[in-house]
Amino acid sequence: MLIRVINPNTSRAMTDKIGRTAREVAGPGVDVVATCPTPGEGPAAVESHTDEAWAALTVARDVADARADGFVVACFGDPGVDAARELTTGPVIGIAEAAMHVATLAGRSFAVVTTLSRTLGRAQDLVRRHGFGDACVASYAADVPVLDLEEPASAAHESIAALAERAVRVDGADTVVLGCAGMTDLCADLTERVGVPVIDGVAAAVGLVAGMVRMGVGTSKRDEYAPPPRTAPRLTRR
Amino acid sequence: MLIRVINPNTSRAMTDKIGRTAREVAGPGVDVVATCPTPGEGPAAVESHTDEAWAALTVARDVADARADGFVVACFGDPGVDAARELTTGPVIGIAEAAMHVATLAGRSFAVVTTLSRTLGRAQDLVRRHGFGDACVASYAADVPVLDLEEPASAAHESIAALAERAVRVDGADTVVLGCAGMTDLCADLTERVGVPVIDGVAAAVGLVAGMVRMGVGTSKRDEYAPPPRTAPRLTRR
Amino acid sequence: MLIRVINPNTSRAMTDKIGRTAREVAGPGVDVVATCPTPGEGPAAVESHTDEAWAALTVARDVADARADGFVVACFGDPGVDAARELTTGPVIGIAEAAMHVATLAGRSFAVVTTLSRTLGRAQDLVRRHGFGDACVASYAADVPVLDLEEPASAAHESIAALAERAVRVDGADTVVLGCAGMTDLCADLTERVGVPVIDGVAAAVGLVAGMVRMGVGTSKRDEYAPPPRTAPRLTRR
Amino acid sequence: MLIRVINPNTSRAMTDKIGRTAREVAGPGVDVVATCPTPGEGPAAVESHTDEAWAALTVARDVADARADGFVVACFGDPGVDAARELTTGPVIGIAEAAMHVATLAGRSFAVVTTLSRTLGRAQDLVRRHGFGDACVASYAADVPVLDLEEPASAAHESIAALAERAVRVDGADTVVLGCAGMTDLCADLTERVGVPVIDGVAAAVGLVAGMVRMGVGTSKRDEYAPPPRTAPRLTRR
Amino acid sequence: MLIRVINPNTSRAMTDKIGRTAREVAGPGVDVVATCPTPGEGPAAVESHTDEAWAALTVARDVADARADGFVVACFGDPGVDAARELTTGPVIGIAEAAMHVATLAGRSFAVVTTLSRTLGRAQDLVRRHGFGDACVASYAADVPVLDLEEPASAAHESIAALAERAVRVDGADTVVLGCAGMTDLCADLTERVGVPVIDGVAAAVGLVAGMVRMGVGTSKRDEYAPPPRTAPRLTRR
Amino acid sequence: MLIRVINPNTSRAMTDKIGRTAREVAGPGVDVVATCPTPGEGPAAVESHTDEAWAALTVARDVADARADGFVVACFGDPGVDAARELTTGPVIGIAEAAMHVATLAGRSFAVVTTLSRTLGRAQDLVRRHGFGDACVASYAADVPVLDLEEPASAAHESIAALAERAVRVDGADTVVLGCAGMTDLCADLTERVGVPVIDGVAAAVGLVAGMVRMGVGTSKRDEYAPPPRTAPRLTRR
Repeated sequence: MLIRVINPNTSRAMTDKIGRTAREVAGPGVDVVATCPTPGEGPAAVESHTDEAWAALTVARDVADARADGFVVACFGDPGVDAARELTTGPVIGIAEAAMHVATLAGRSFAVVTTLSRTLGRAQDLVRRHGFGDACVASYAADVPVLDLEEPASAAHESIAALAERAVRVDGADTVVLGCAGMTDLCADLTERVGVPVIDGVAAAVGLVAGMVRMGVGTSKRDEYAPPPRTAPRLTRR
Repeated sequence: MLIRVINPNTSRAMTDKIGRTAREVAGPGVDVVATCPTPGEGPAAVESHTDEAWAALTVARDVADARADGFVVACFGDPGVDAARELTTGPVIGIAEAAMHVATLAGRSFAVVTTLSRTLGRAQDLVRRHGFGDACVASYAADVPVLDLEEPASAAHESIAALAERAVRVDGADTVVLGCAGMTDLCADLTERVGVPVIDGVAAAVGLVAGMVRMGVGTSKRDEYAPPPRTAPRLTRR
Repeated sequence: MLIRVINPNTSRAMTDKIGRTAREVAGPGVDVVATCPTPGEGPAAVESHTDEAWAALTVARDVADARADGFVVACFGDPGVDAARELTTGPVIGIAEAAMHVATLAGRSFAVVTTLSRTLGRAQDLVRRHGFGDACVASYAADVPVLDLEEPASAAHESIAALAERAVRVDGADTVVLGCAGMTDLCADLTERVGVPVIDGVAAAVGLVAGMVRMGVGTSKRDEYAPPPRTAPRLTRR
Repeated sequence: MLIRVINPNTSRAMTDKIGRTAREVAGPGVDVVATCPTPGEGPAAVESHTDEAWAALTVARDVADARADGFVVACFGDPGVDAARELTTGPVIGIAEAAMHVATLAGRSFAVVTTLSRTLGRAQDLVRRHGFGDACVASYAADVPVLDLEEPASAAHESIAALAERAVRVDGADTVVLGCAGMTDLCADLTERVGVPVIDGVAAAVGLVAGMVRMGVGTSKRDEYAPPPRTAPRLTRR
Repeated sequence: MLIRVINPNTSRAMTDKIGRTAREVAGPGVDVVATCPTPGEGPAAVESHTDEAWAALTVARDVADARADGFVVACFGDPGVDAARELTTGPVIGIAEAAMHVATLAGRSFAVVTTLSRTLGRAQDLVRRHGFGDACVASYAADVPVLDLEEPASAAHESIAALAERAVRVDGADTVVLGCAGMTDLCADLTERVGVPVIDGVAAAVGLVAGMVRMGVGTSKRDEYAPPPRTAPRLTRR
Repeated sequence: MLIRVINPNTSRAMTDKIGRTAREVAGPGVDVVATCPTPGEGPAAVESHTDEAWAALTVARDVADARADGFVVACFGDPGVDAARELTTGPVIGIAEAAMHVATLAGRSFAVVTTLSRTLGRAQDLVRRHGFGDACVASYAADVPVLDLEEPASAAHESIAALAERAVRVDGADTVVLGCAGMTDLCADLTERVGVPVIDGVAAAVGLVAGMVRMGVGTSKRDEYAPPPRTAPRLTRR
């Protein structure tokens, strides 16, 4: 089984990190390819609705071109997931929805800890669209730009840990959802520190895709996700 | 006051039609520019999530470049509205949200009549995001491709009228929302035929934008819609 | 076009103030009449459900008697709007619903700042009935009686400003909705002070009514809002 | 214990019928007074929002004047219940909310069968305000004017029975809620005919008020329902 | 009329206390039997989902065996209520649902004050299932084990009073719902102290059951609550 | 990794069938034990709330006694899942919640096809508790007793297929959820016949549990699911 994990930003370092997590949890018999757009063909980071619009096209284009048994969109806004579902028959799962599904199987309530506060609106949209409005008891932003997560010396890790602890102690969250693919390497440490399951969407999505492929469940091609009239365009910065 | 109405598909004929409606309802003192991407810089029609991803970027790019007091996104999926709000200070309104807001001021309940059934999922997402889940009592697709609306000889008009009548008689809709910018020229005739207000999102959005500009209300730039770290890319098909 | 703005309390000073705002935002070609009941034919202020019951009848009576292209009910509980819709064919919009609709077009979330805490229940009913339960992130009362808003020397303005700022800083409201027609003259100053759009329902309602009249959309007369079996009674205090 | 049952329309015959039901279910130790406004001081029937506005004032005035341990508002739109709660310390319960509460204790789901379709909007508002949106699986109107219920020879009874049966067989309603105080005398017969509990709001409200008085629970006077700044006006048709 | 009040834990003292409350509010003509399982046939207290599973069977068994006109399940998790409804024709009401129904008739909003925080999840499930998600503005646990309520010298009473006051002052609750049958004797004192109606589910349920029996309304036997294929087993600890 | 799949009814044949499915989808490195209570220690089938109460205790007892990395409760009412989560540290997933989670990853909407109509209420409770109220567009019962599924000659398969097709064609369901563990062997055939993903909860739950164990996520032991004061009792029919 081949799972393709698409990081829609152009950071190669982050993509490698995401690939490592994906391989660790994939289990025997599952191959993982982690990919990202080349500079100029996707946003440097996804930190706004504007970035997300570009990221969505990047994801759609990649799924239209590649072959895999299932796809993971490794960006917490789940950009392009709907489009990608039109363009393949296998499962396509975003890391935000994946993390939320797993979180609600591990406890009654969860909190989201993400990077920039300006992205909380998008997170809220996803929470509600997927029916997790009652389960999500808090969402916090650490005010950390996405690419700072790649700086070991930054205060990012500490800020995130503090918010995760607050979500558990003050808001009574049963679990904590990490709101960025770039936090994937913090998951084990945070789980230990906070004392409740901390959910990394990359791991969650890989687990869900692998499970669905094994049980023979892909994307329903009934109507909304049937092949589209026009495929995803291949665009480049002018 | 200048309102810029962006049709994100490349049909010049549809754009002209949209511009005519916009000018008719704009009232004295309001100038309207109706625009669309050149072929190769946007989708031929918006009939899938894949098309919508491209449309969103098209809208964002246009708003980033143009100057206007307010913007209307003239495509029923409201593609790119969130991104566009980051890129200007004036109001930005999609025709789907506009039509739904006006519909709920004209009656308790509304129905949506749109083109292709595969787009009903997106319409449902918008209905729920904007809080109109209780008000929307039905949504129908006439199984008419978007560009057929430009063919006077097609059966499109008839199919749409039949569904609008059904929504009123069977589902008890107080008003009917037209689910495509390309239906803008059918509005008056359908209103007369169906006997309840039929809401065209283009007219609704122009009215709302003009009203907001007059009362000095634009887009809140507090956090989510503050200027983004990176502006909208200028992309072209490779 | 003639818009009739009905203040259901008997304060002539407040009615004049409301009329000024309405005329300022109405735009060219729109005439505005602002009216209120004579003392003894309506409540001195609307500060309770009991006051609102009387206000509703006052509004219904006025709409039944007057001629206009559209009506605005200038009281934040939107009293009598449902009845008034039965009694005319044009649009009828309350300032609470108007402000909420416009607020959700200017940002994702809003807060309400009103006069007395005992009226927050009614505000909450309106928020939910119109589908804005997710968008409304806070509602505050300044503990200011309605008629104190007419006293320039009162602390009312200051209290309202403090709550508006709190709503933005603490609750993360993208916009602030003013919860009383008598606050209409504070809107510009508060907008500047708070730094986000502050929405005055009088201006919002006038803009919406004018837009609906221009696009030819009135109240659906299908069933609920068809002419009632009995018109509004003309009542006087015994 | 004295319970005052207020029929806000001026039909003396309907009021007497309501009083009979109330006395039958009140149980030992409970006195019931059933009252209605004199002609010219209230609507002949409550069949529109306009009628309801007048009915609300009628109820408020009666509660302000009378003495009782608890009050029942015997009109399915629950007009004036909020105002009445401000004007007394005992419980005040409308027959719509009463019937819905009891219905959800007798089964998972209920349907409403009422008189005129134009009143279904108000019924829906009450269903949602009280949290019964999931429980209410259907609502039907028999297209029977309220006062026709007083005509033994009318087809009203038959129409209502047919809709109640449809609600059970087709919509799977566990119980049926009668949508008008004037249907109170049909309840026993309909229960037998339909085979599920048919809930009459008059009986339900009397039972709830009596129970609350016995356990010493009245209306919370904390804030919203504290005594209002101005009492209910005594109005008469000019 | 005979009402059977089932305390599913094995505390005889708590059962006696519950019986006293039930008799006080039952009114003339209503006999009350209060019962509980013998040790080894039910949990010592209901403080977890595990306890609740046993309690549910205990309740179902008791209802299958006993004869009564109506049943009250005197445990705030309402264990076994659904099963019991299958096993009798009269009304079966849990004290949690009863208290919530009465609370929303006495004011707009309520708060729950219960014993252990680990049971708040179950309380939340009941709040939402019965449609009271908007009405319930807070829920607190006093961190008091259930059987401590039987110790007059314990700090339980004081902790509960402090939380009830907080719910009213800080959260704006119109009423307070007691979250354990063992708090029934605190109700009068707390009402006086907090100044708003404090609702004891035992009293509320008895009042509701008595009212339903008087109006001839039992459990709908349509489908879900029809007699089950197998009756409740009689189980004993091995 | 060891996953324990608990069928809470006493049918050995159904348990074997469930075990076969579980092993097929578990993937390399995952051992599966499928178990059920001995006759007299659990219900013959789970077809009512009464049966479910017994099933819940059966599940709780099994989880308290057994050792495994994760547990699946193989009964569509998810009986005892909450209790079981208190009694282990690994993940515990019911087949109803599992199927719903996977269904919403494979399409926007799903329908449930179950055995007896009397169990639809429980299914609805689960749909809402887990936030899938918008996604679940229909639920049907084939009127097939659970144990008839073990009869190859019965009409059960045909009835289920007809309802699944109806859900897709008429209700527009993107996927179909099988509402009973005993349908697990029908899944492949139904998928082919209906043309959309048909989700078997047993496979879904095994996939989810395996994924969670691999990513190191178990049940949050924060508060609600911490070890309970009393463990599950070992009960036997008297």
